[in-house]
Amino acid sequence: MSESLHRVIIIGGGFGGLYAAKALRKAPVEITLIDKRNFHLLQPLLYQVATGGLSPGDIAAPLRYILKHQRNVRVMLGEVTAIDIPRNLVSIAQLALPFDTLIVATGAENHYYGNDQWEQFAPGLKTIEDATSCRGRIFGAFELAERELDQARRQRLMTFVIVGGGPTGVELAGALAEIAHDTLKNEFRGINPAESQIYLVEASPRILSEFPSSLSTRATSTLDRLGVQVLTNHRVVGIDRHGADLIEGNAIRRIEAGTVLWGAGIRASSLGQLLTKDNPSVIDRTGRVKVERDLSLPGHPDIFVIGDLANFSHQTGSPLPPIAPVAMSQGKYVARLVNDRLHGRTTPPFHYMNKGILATIGRAAAVADFGWIRFSGFTAWVLWLFVHLMYLAGFENRFLVFIQWAWNYLTFNRTAWLITTARRKDQ
Amino acid sequence: MSESLHRVIIIGGGFGGLYAAKALRKAPVEITLIDKRNFHLLQPLLYQVATGGLSPGDIAAPLRYILKHQRNVRVMLGEVTAIDIPRNLVSIAQLALPFDTLIVATGAENHYYGNDQWEQFAPGLKTIEDATSCRGRIFGAFELAERELDQARRQRLMTFVIVGGGPTGVELAGALAEIAHDTLKNEFRGINPAESQIYLVEASPRILSEFPSSLSTRATSTLDRLGVQVLTNHRVVGIDRHGADLIEGNAIRRIEAGTVLWGAGIRASSLGQLLTKDNPSVIDRTGRVKVERDLSLPGHPDIFVIGDLANFSHQTGSPLPPIAPVAMSQGKYVARLVNDRLHGRTTPPFHYMNKGILATIGRAAAVADFGWIRFSGFTAWVLWLFVHLMYLAGFENRFLVFIQWAWNYLTFNRTAWLITTARRKDQ
Repeated sequence: MSESLHRVIIIGGGFGGLYAAKALRKAPVEITLIDKRNFHLLQPLLYQVATGGLSPGDIAAPLRYILKHQRNVRVMLGEVTAIDIPRNLVSIAQLALPFDTLIVATGAENHYYGNDQWEQFAPGLKTIEDATSCRGRIFGAFELAERELDQARRQRLMTFVIVGGGPTGVELAGALAEIAHDTLKNEFRGINPAESQIYLVEASPRILSEFPSSLSTRATSTLDRLGVQVLTNHRVVGIDRHGADLIEGNAIRRIEAGTVLWGAGIRASSLGQLLTKDNPSVIDRTGRVKVERDLSLPGHPDIFVIGDLANFSHQTGSPLPPIAPVAMSQGKYVARLVNDRLHGRTTPPFHYMNKGILATIGRAAAVADFGWIRFSGFTAWVLWLFVHLMYLAGFENRFLVFIQWAWNYLTFNRTAWLITTARRKDQ
Repeated sequence: MSESLHRVIIIGGGFGGLYAAKALRKAPVEITLIDKRNFHLLQPLLYQVATGGLSPGDIAAPLRYILKHQRNVRVMLGEVTAIDIPRNLVSIAQLALPFDTLIVATGAENHYYGNDQWEQFAPGLKTIEDATSCRGRIFGAFELAERELDQARRQRLMTFVIVGGGPTGVELAGALAEIAHDTLKNEFRGINPAESQIYLVEASPRILSEFPSSLSTRATSTLDRLGVQVLTNHRVVGIDRHGADLIEGNAIRRIEAGTVLWGAGIRASSLGQLLTKDNPSVIDRTGRVKVERDLSLPGHPDIFVIGDLANFSHQTGSPLPPIAPVAMSQGKYVARLVNDRLHGRTTPPFHYMNKGILATIGRAAAVADFGWIRFSGFTAWVLWLFVHLMYLAGFENRFLVFIQWAWNYLTFNRTAWLITTARRKDQ
């Protein structure tokens, strides 16, 4: 790489950062892509790992491998410890790397709304480790139930509470119902997994609140048919080793449960704080950076924030949702803008073309909303499958993952349920 | 299951225990298979996980899933805490399970010959966690080298020492050479992985000492061609964060290395001690139980010890090797003996039909010794591949693993190199 090239640093190799890097492949720039993990992760499929349908290796691929043929990118593994905006420097470990353009795409993490002590009892679903931990808890609960002699304790171990009725919670609940009723059929001698209780708890009046209410109703009835008890208008006020406390109106309700999973909230990555030290007013209450119309940090036209870390409200008045299509679209936009600037062209403000939202429920049902059309059931599920296979583009093993999915679908199988983490200490 | 059936408890779901359980499928017994992990693991393929060729899910399958249709088996997850021989009871957690026949097949673990402090610097290769830890160290070393400015430190990070020239060490060394020369080609910008130094250290005069010496010679020259430096007659006397100290004759030699991997020794599972408290003379110096000709514990005709935990020396005067074919054969033998007894028949003593030994070296070479024939090179490698595919029998995904292998072979690829554990603290 030459000294004279425009230096772009991208922090974060998720959908936003990776697509920005890829879209700059023909630009006259030298790119450094920094991530604290060495792989790109298909976060929307983490629930599949958590429920034993796919293995971690199926939904993650090394960033280096994905970008090996793009000679204007170097990948660096490391955690950014400081961003020196006046001097245009990013620090990782002992290195201080200079940039001309900085793109920050570090996403979000689990958020427990001031109840961080819940995390140990109710893991979220943002990392591979989260997913294998959830997997260990779910399948470990059935193992403990199998050798439990006490009826009440056995029932508690076979009770699952999922907090949060967004897409993650709905997907988890659907997959859990499938595990209890189909996957584990015949595998135990002392318990009947089909007798499991699965609760999906949502504080607002309906699940999938970002979808039209007709689809929420449809999702609720699908979950109901699968045996999931949907508790809307129930707020979680306590989580401990043995269950969760909920409030509905003025009534407190206790659910004794061996496994509680968290899908209720995310908070933007703490790098947003590093970026806005001199101007904290551009941070919103979940830690996102309120960006300009061109996705730049206010007052810093060469620094861009994209993906789940960005709050882009210029289009609809409210922030765009924290989903992969938004991040990908923003990554491509910033790449285009950088390239335009280098060629002396101006770029119109960012505009998100709504590609629709999708959530899957169990093995052959989903809901889809494209604005102009909405539908549910098997067609939506096939669409969901297709879209997520497209995400795998760039994955060498997408063909294998597809075969795995087809196999799982045809055989009701989930055999990736190795209990490798989260050995339970409660018995 | 009925009260009146003969109760068989099998401890350990490796090759020995699993094959014993399967071979008892038509016997009039009720079997309890206990394992502290919920899966059967293809230990001979752990080095593939350690080197990013396969994912953990490819080489492990839930025991419950493998045995779901065998109605006379129940699987229990748990760690055995006591064996009460006079009362015929096995304890796990709060349960005391009675048996009429006990089969102990708990295998072996890493052994550092009194230098347990080496383990933190040089992980072995007996568990899934060992393998993902090795994987994290190997690929993490290249990541750190990529961002290292100091020449000496960079060279140290790109130096690998493998301790032990048995099959595990040879397989690791071959795979590491492949990673350095093929897999990671083009993936880095600041370093050239082909400049890595890979040392295979063996205390005795030749590697693969359990093979005929002609095959050791062949393996050494194959490794040499792959760029591995084979150091025989070198004994390891120290391992620390930054390398290893070796002794050759009277000379001490220091190798500065960022990664040291341990393939030098195993010790039998500690359950051997539990079994022989009243008769410690039947334990050998690596913790194996010296069994009778019918694989029973001396003085206890209803208790059997098989696999890596057993020292069976009646056939050749020295113990049978700790390999999967021996364990499988012993598992089947004990199953036959139990069934014979229940039908009033006597069973001849155990005799191991030598099925040959195999070790693979890199992507298309191996050595094989069948006693009556020995060969090396590509033919031996194809045979190795075939034998290990057979081990996958009972694995739902053996077809997928085969495709993965074929793909890796054709494309020189290893993309399962997620760094999920063993974040390095040394920089």
